[in-house]
Amino acid sequence: MTEKIILDCDPGHDDALAILLAAGDPRCELLAVTTVAGNQTIDKVTRNARAVCTIAGVDVPVARGAAGPLVREAIVAPDYHGESGLDGPVLPTPTVGLDERRAAELIVETVLSHEPGTVTLVPTGPLTNIALALALEPRLAGLVKRVVLMGGSYTRGNRTPAAEFNILADPEAAEAVFAGSWPVTMVGLDLTHQALADDAFRGRVRALGTPLAAFVDELLEFFTAAYAARGFPAPAVHDLCAVAAALDPGVMTYRDAFVTVETAGRWTTGMTVTDFDGDLGRPLTTSVAVGLDRDRLWDMTVAAIAALGG
Amino acid sequence: MTEKIILDCDPGHDDALAILLAAGDPRCELLAVTTVAGNQTIDKVTRNARAVCTIAGVDVPVARGAAGPLVREAIVAPDYHGESGLDGPVLPTPTVGLDERRAAELIVETVLSHEPGTVTLVPTGPLTNIALALALEPRLAGLVKRVVLMGGSYTRGNRTPAAEFNILADPEAAEAVFAGSWPVTMVGLDLTHQALADDAFRGRVRALGTPLAAFVDELLEFFTAAYAARGFPAPAVHDLCAVAAALDPGVMTYRDAFVTVETAGRWTTGMTVTDFDGDLGRPLTTSVAVGLDRDRLWDMTVAAIAALGG
Amino acid sequence: MTEKIILDCDPGHDDALAILLAAGDPRCELLAVTTVAGNQTIDKVTRNARAVCTIAGVDVPVARGAAGPLVREAIVAPDYHGESGLDGPVLPTPTVGLDERRAAELIVETVLSHEPGTVTLVPTGPLTNIALALALEPRLAGLVKRVVLMGGSYTRGNRTPAAEFNILADPEAAEAVFAGSWPVTMVGLDLTHQALADDAFRGRVRALGTPLAAFVDELLEFFTAAYAARGFPAPAVHDLCAVAAALDPGVMTYRDAFVTVETAGRWTTGMTVTDFDGDLGRPLTTSVAVGLDRDRLWDMTVAAIAALGG
Amino acid sequence: MTEKIILDCDPGHDDALAILLAAGDPRCELLAVTTVAGNQTIDKVTRNARAVCTIAGVDVPVARGAAGPLVREAIVAPDYHGESGLDGPVLPTPTVGLDERRAAELIVETVLSHEPGTVTLVPTGPLTNIALALALEPRLAGLVKRVVLMGGSYTRGNRTPAAEFNILADPEAAEAVFAGSWPVTMVGLDLTHQALADDAFRGRVRALGTPLAAFVDELLEFFTAAYAARGFPAPAVHDLCAVAAALDPGVMTYRDAFVTVETAGRWTTGMTVTDFDGDLGRPLTTSVAVGLDRDRLWDMTVAAIAALGG
Ligand SMILES: [Ca+2]
Ligand SMILES: [Ca+2]
Ligand SMILES: [Ca+2]
Ligand SMILES: [Ca+2]
Repeated sequence: MTEKIILDCDPGHDDALAILLAAGDPRCELLAVTTVAGNQTIDKVTRNARAVCTIAGVDVPVARGAAGPLVREAIVAPDYHGESGLDGPVLPTPTVGLDERRAAELIVETVLSHEPGTVTLVPTGPLTNIALALALEPRLAGLVKRVVLMGGSYTRGNRTPAAEFNILADPEAAEAVFAGSWPVTMVGLDLTHQALADDAFRGRVRALGTPLAAFVDELLEFFTAAYAARGFPAPAVHDLCAVAAALDPGVMTYRDAFVTVETAGRWTTGMTVTDFDGDLGRPLTTSVAVGLDRDRLWDMTVAAIAALGG
Repeated sequence: MTEKIILDCDPGHDDALAILLAAGDPRCELLAVTTVAGNQTIDKVTRNARAVCTIAGVDVPVARGAAGPLVREAIVAPDYHGESGLDGPVLPTPTVGLDERRAAELIVETVLSHEPGTVTLVPTGPLTNIALALALEPRLAGLVKRVVLMGGSYTRGNRTPAAEFNILADPEAAEAVFAGSWPVTMVGLDLTHQALADDAFRGRVRALGTPLAAFVDELLEFFTAAYAARGFPAPAVHDLCAVAAALDPGVMTYRDAFVTVETAGRWTTGMTVTDFDGDLGRPLTTSVAVGLDRDRLWDMTVAAIAALGG
Repeated sequence: MTEKIILDCDPGHDDALAILLAAGDPRCELLAVTTVAGNQTIDKVTRNARAVCTIAGVDVPVARGAAGPLVREAIVAPDYHGESGLDGPVLPTPTVGLDERRAAELIVETVLSHEPGTVTLVPTGPLTNIALALALEPRLAGLVKRVVLMGGSYTRGNRTPAAEFNILADPEAAEAVFAGSWPVTMVGLDLTHQALADDAFRGRVRALGTPLAAFVDELLEFFTAAYAARGFPAPAVHDLCAVAAALDPGVMTYRDAFVTVETAGRWTTGMTVTDFDGDLGRPLTTSVAVGLDRDRLWDMTVAAIAALGG
Repeated sequence: MTEKIILDCDPGHDDALAILLAAGDPRCELLAVTTVAGNQTIDKVTRNARAVCTIAGVDVPVARGAAGPLVREAIVAPDYHGESGLDGPVLPTPTVGLDERRAAELIVETVLSHEPGTVTLVPTGPLTNIALALALEPRLAGLVKRVVLMGGSYTRGNRTPAAEFNILADPEAAEAVFAGSWPVTMVGLDLTHQALADDAFRGRVRALGTPLAAFVDELLEFFTAAYAARGFPAPAVHDLCAVAAALDPGVMTYRDAFVTVETAGRWTTGMTVTDFDGDLGRPLTTSVAVGLDRDRLWDMTVAAIAALGG
């Protein structure tokens, strides 16, 4: 039994790993890859997504999405991902085509064309496309299996003291996604900071000896340096975790919470306000990842890279 | 020389008048009518739009749009428009069909399929569809001739002390529309409260003696009572003014301003902050209607109703 | 029967006129003058207040008050009042002493030492001292006769599109004052922009032929030029109106409203949200000045200046 | 060399312990105890403070302070402290008098009457009095040695997901205190949740065998049950930590941060936004307690209770 997944991303080093896991894990039926402005401009992340799909031999529709957030000015993250959004390895010229549809439209059509309750959305960038798709077609909330997103935090942010990048980049979109009447799983910083791609993991990847493994290693080389500049011993591979959560119910543990997004604060805009205890009097409808089986994550990732050959 | 117009509305009594003016004025080439949840639910306003198009003999694509705002909970306005959204007259069963596309998609495709700089968007409801269309297709900002919207105020609101209904109903969408790099004309309450459909105007309509004129009179009968309950001597036909402004450069006078929407206030959310003097240090890129040639408005409206026959 | 008044001010040209009216009107028993940072720094406005009291022969306690708002950064208004806060005439060296108490403490002690319900507070600057006095001694709310303040607007601001200077300068203090359980009368811009000190009024003052009249004329000379730069035909003598309202029940007309202050807006902080219609569901406990008997205002002002001799 | 301390509190079980430590530790020269509405109404906490001072034999001025926050509606905490604010033990009738001055005035006068740089303010309730004192007398910022406050958090709150009680109870006062140009040390939840008064500590107190020790044990009995209801194995004695930090430089470790208070959020008002990394571009002027030498805290507390005899 496989999971049908639409991966909505802004590659991004960890988005690249997320694509590889989705492409190589036997439990995953990847339906489409869509892009959204985030770590870099929509042009750059779309080129990156196509390049990674080319490397991974992914042959599904790839669609370009939102060029910026619903309301705010766009922000980017060159400090973590470089000017290209995927600095480090040399990227191949993409041979994977670009779907004619816009990302939100592709998401809507793909969900409508599958059995209700079978398609999982996995956003690993700002939530603009997902919010647009839901606004365009409100029935989506009842048709999607669930949304498993990388974003937010229940303690501290990474872009500001309160906000994680993906949520800060489009807080109104994120608010709409958390408020939607579909099941949402939040894989935030508290989880992904448990997934530091350390030397042991990198050694396992390198040991595969394939060109793809070398590509991954080059990605992690750059990403490690970027995180070192912020005092991390190894880089957090955030987006990989969201795909893992979508595929493997046993790789994480969860707590129920009410989650919403602060959009009006002077200092806290983009924060995922996370109420585990019902203090705010709202139903605890979001599943928040709190614990990671790290070995299991690395095992499935190495296996996926191996399975992709390359 | 005619004006190509897409009318995006939430009928609504004054939206109905706006449709009639767009349909009957010889300067107007109506390309499409799209609907948005606002005065009532999307089901009700879509039925109302189709019914009015049927009465007016309008034969253009009519597309159903957003069922609620981008982020917030929906609000409706039964106090002004009744439970149906168009209380008063008996509405015919619509014979006008419903386009298969969603409103935002129809707007995008229609603009893309005409000469750049020729299509004017005239939103007379919450700005959800317009913001969605712009988010889906950012090139729209450079292709649309202008946006002439009914909404906002530069003094006081009507739904709260600070906010006018259309803007309050989807403040984030409104913020995005005002921030878009397209020319925006704001026809707000300060203008439309100069357009009270008094007995003299109603008398001129009735004198036409057609079934359509009788329909308009019944609309105004209900609307007059709704406004009387709020101390107005006659109802403000807000949306009619936006269509008039789109068609006739001489019917109003304007001042340049920077306009944005408050979305973070405790008490002021949905307010159109309007800076005529540059106090906020932003370019004055919005054209704000300030003065109305009332006779000219009534003349063109009566003429349009007459032209539609019926 | 006289009105006992404490005048809390930030002179300021119109504050100076307010002091003169309070000093010279036979209905006024001026108990104290207190100062607050606003139009200029606390040092400057305190010197100005003492200089004006010296000119007017006022012999009541004058106390220095807050050097800045409760929470925010201070703002000043040199564009209207010059670098000194009272540019134009040469000011005399003050001979009026400075009370040892801080303004808020003097206000509290003065109110406590008079019969309950007899003392009116007339703030014509930011509301910092008044809020501090109320916070220090909550019983004040039940002991003061009323607060008649110059500040706010129910349509548009003067410092930003939404905010009037006095309220913007300390919005939290203003919020506390409007929320206090004492009667509040708001004399805002909608009223004071009806009180433009035009040539006719200035002519009447000059005709008094006294040195004090000449001083007033010099004040108005500077103030007229400052307002001319903003397109006004004559300067609005805001603060004078508040004293007039405190002394003469017939000089203005009023409407009841709920008034609060926006403190959380991106664009609207400092706005006096004014609900005349109960749309916000709060009791309409503030009396808002809406109409001015201009002749009556000028008559009492000319009479007060005449009565002061000088 | 002793530390001169003014303890500003809202007893409260942990405030009571804070009083005892301040009273009994040989390094502390307690100058005054002031009260502020917080855990309960100002009447209740003032009675509690006097009762605890009576028990502890404290003979310093005790002054009643603010009855509520600067701007907002008051909140109380009966869920943690009971209806009396100090439920559990039977309180004696206070024999300690009440100073005639208001708390803010007593604080100002006390600081002004000591050598500059010698008096430490230790607020363990909402920061209303401290903000009032600073607003009344801005020179305080240059005269106080430092402010060591219990409040806030750099991860999660206790009253809402984002806000700790003391800060939430008067966020504007807290914002003013953190923004003041005096040294501030924040002892927040991240620290105080390391100070759970467990059975071992309680056993040591009981072993003292004095009536005072029995009183403390009764306090902790009630407090333990209140925290058990929230899933804590033992109660966090927050306020005790602030006094300890003021007296003993070695009991905690600290990190520099910029700290401010969110006052405009929909969900995050009262949050202490804590930037350790300079992401917000502000100087890191607040010292934030991060690590606790628990044994040292318990040792000094037991010693203080022992020293007080009783
Ligand atoms: Ca990403
Ligand atoms: Ca409408
Ligand atoms: Ca003034
Ligand atoms: Ca406390």
